[in-house]
Amino acid sequence: MEVRRLAVVGTGLIGASVALAAKRAGLREVVGYDPDPQALDAAVERGAVDSGAESLADAVAGTQLAVVAAPVAQLAPQVRAVLEASEEDCTVTDVGSTKVGVCSAALGTGRFVGGHPVCGSEARGAEHASAELFDGATWFLTPLAATDPERYRLVHGFVSSLGATPVAVDPVAHDQLVALTSHLPHALANLLVNQAGANRIDGHDPVAAAGGSLRDMTRVAGANPRIWIDIFLDNAGPVREALGDHRKQLDRLEQALETGDAGFLAKWIGEAAGNRQRMLADAYPDPGALQQLRVHVPDRPGVLAGITQALGAERINIEDFELHHMSPDRGGTLTLLITGEAEARRAAELLGAQGYGVVVAPALGE
Amino acid sequence: MEVRRLAVVGTGLIGASVALAAKRAGLREVVGYDPDPQALDAAVERGAVDSGAESLADAVAGTQLAVVAAPVAQLAPQVRAVLEASEEDCTVTDVGSTKVGVCSAALGTGRFVGGHPVCGSEARGAEHASAELFDGATWFLTPLAATDPERYRLVHGFVSSLGATPVAVDPVAHDQLVALTSHLPHALANLLVNQAGANRIDGHDPVAAAGGSLRDMTRVAGANPRIWIDIFLDNAGPVREALGDHRKQLDRLEQALETGDAGFLAKWIGEAAGNRQRMLADAYPDPGALQQLRVHVPDRPGVLAGITQALGAERINIEDFELHHMSPDRGGTLTLLITGEAEARRAAELLGAQGYGVVVAPALGE
Repeated sequence: MEVRRLAVVGTGLIGASVALAAKRAGLREVVGYDPDPQALDAAVERGAVDSGAESLADAVAGTQLAVVAAPVAQLAPQVRAVLEASEEDCTVTDVGSTKVGVCSAALGTGRFVGGHPVCGSEARGAEHASAELFDGATWFLTPLAATDPERYRLVHGFVSSLGATPVAVDPVAHDQLVALTSHLPHALANLLVNQAGANRIDGHDPVAAAGGSLRDMTRVAGANPRIWIDIFLDNAGPVREALGDHRKQLDRLEQALETGDAGFLAKWIGEAAGNRQRMLADAYPDPGALQQLRVHVPDRPGVLAGITQALGAERINIEDFELHHMSPDRGGTLTLLITGEAEARRAAELLGAQGYGVVVAPALGE
Repeated sequence: MEVRRLAVVGTGLIGASVALAAKRAGLREVVGYDPDPQALDAAVERGAVDSGAESLADAVAGTQLAVVAAPVAQLAPQVRAVLEASEEDCTVTDVGSTKVGVCSAALGTGRFVGGHPVCGSEARGAEHASAELFDGATWFLTPLAATDPERYRLVHGFVSSLGATPVAVDPVAHDQLVALTSHLPHALANLLVNQAGANRIDGHDPVAAAGGSLRDMTRVAGANPRIWIDIFLDNAGPVREALGDHRKQLDRLEQALETGDAGFLAKWIGEAAGNRQRMLADAYPDPGALQQLRVHVPDRPGVLAGITQALGAERINIEDFELHHMSPDRGGTLTLLITGEAEARRAAELLGAQGYGVVVAPALGE
């Protein structure tokens, strides 16, 4: 099985990026279709698709693979329509953020393989599309017992060719997993920023007094409602379950605070440190050796270049690098993660020589 | 009133950094005291204090200002001890993360002004101290009706001279404010990472499958238990209140998910976007104009230098800059915030010319 002609159904940001990435991988022909003619025109203009089809049937005719990139709420009917409109040798996949609904809509056909690229982009429209959107991203695939293994291999190879890393998972497990790792964090970010935003304390506005932790934790707050209303409603079951578990965790914490239970708090924080370290184990070769450097920098162009050049020239590898702005007057805080104490000290000395004061500490507590 | 001789009581990270910053500001003489002789030796070795005193009485003798930098649990008795040991013309302040307890321990004396620098460092010990720790930071001050206005002005001027921005607030309001903006986010970060860490879903480890939102939201999870157990217990009242409000917000969300209330979700997300924008209003001149650029970069030294140099050479001002590592094989994601669409496009073109694919989108949704 080989993809010679690809249909992309839904030519928004994700669909158009799939098309661009497929062409980057050497695919010759990509046909686009979108129920919204403007969205389709944008993808043609962007050069993402070679041609825009007039109808779904035209789009999928003669294709070996159709990628359905519709909004979550339209995913199930759209996948069904594509399965009906396409020939037997056309494999169908999708890119939706939830998988149970669309997989059951595929009615046990061997031709469908559910998919979900985790690329976290909030942009809309083919004009923001990029061939590089999936580079390094996890791409969940949800084959079922009925799925033809050849088709699964085809989709697996296709998403790999786009630069992503395919990870197979059961659709029910997928939806629970994203409820816990993405939808619950999004919900808590919204809850937290709205709680802080709704209160004024003795004339002080909590959101204006926000420290780094509140800013970090509300990074995704208010994210694109067109996408997120659908996701919350479509995955309401697993999200409610995750919120229920969250409530149980809250109960235990509140009890510990009520009784002044320092032992519980110590265990709870220790567990959190361990889980956080496990989270970073994939990203860093040795999370325990990570050192955090904090530098206060002024707000002007060229500051970052000076710092990264000095470290780059000394071949010091920066694992993470963050600049957070406080205000035009007060400048910002730069946080670097560097592996190894000696290496971190070397970096601190280089920055010290540029006149910066650097605070070095183990990144994961003690 | 003028500070000629300063006493720092408690010479850990914060105390030693106060001493270094005071000397940077031109103060001639800093005396240190710590009940732990090792901590005091470290501060002397670091050159943070000019001399280490043998007793509290020796430390505060002849000083015009004493800064108490004890752990939260020892703050109240230590401030009381310093007030007793020092002469009438010595003003006393502290740097604790909670303020109600220590302010009531000061028993209405006009000589005490509570303080709290918000510098978010998790490091410990004078060896990590830095004169720059407070640059650009908010420093809460909690004068009471009994506080001598001259003393308040003295402390206000002193913390300004350390590079911080003093903000006056009532102690009760302070503790509610930090419960909401710091302690609640910390608690939720721990709850969230422990919830994700306690579950395995169909063989998948949620913390290993963590997307960007979960990583962002658990940045402070597992933070220094020696500091945080004290903070949670000392500020248990306001933290429980904040958790109670959080529960009420949860109720409404769960109800909306149960009834499929898209209208509520739209309003809720819209509010979150507004609150988040308000949070960033201080940090950025025009949050609505912020554009987000996302770039996938390989894991090797020099990459950041190449990017920041190219942008710096073109005088493009980078508001926020974040590199998050995915893995040594998969490289990382670089996220830049730049003000203005034209400026963002110019940056994207410069990076495109270096062979990077860039996804540009408004930073605060649409």
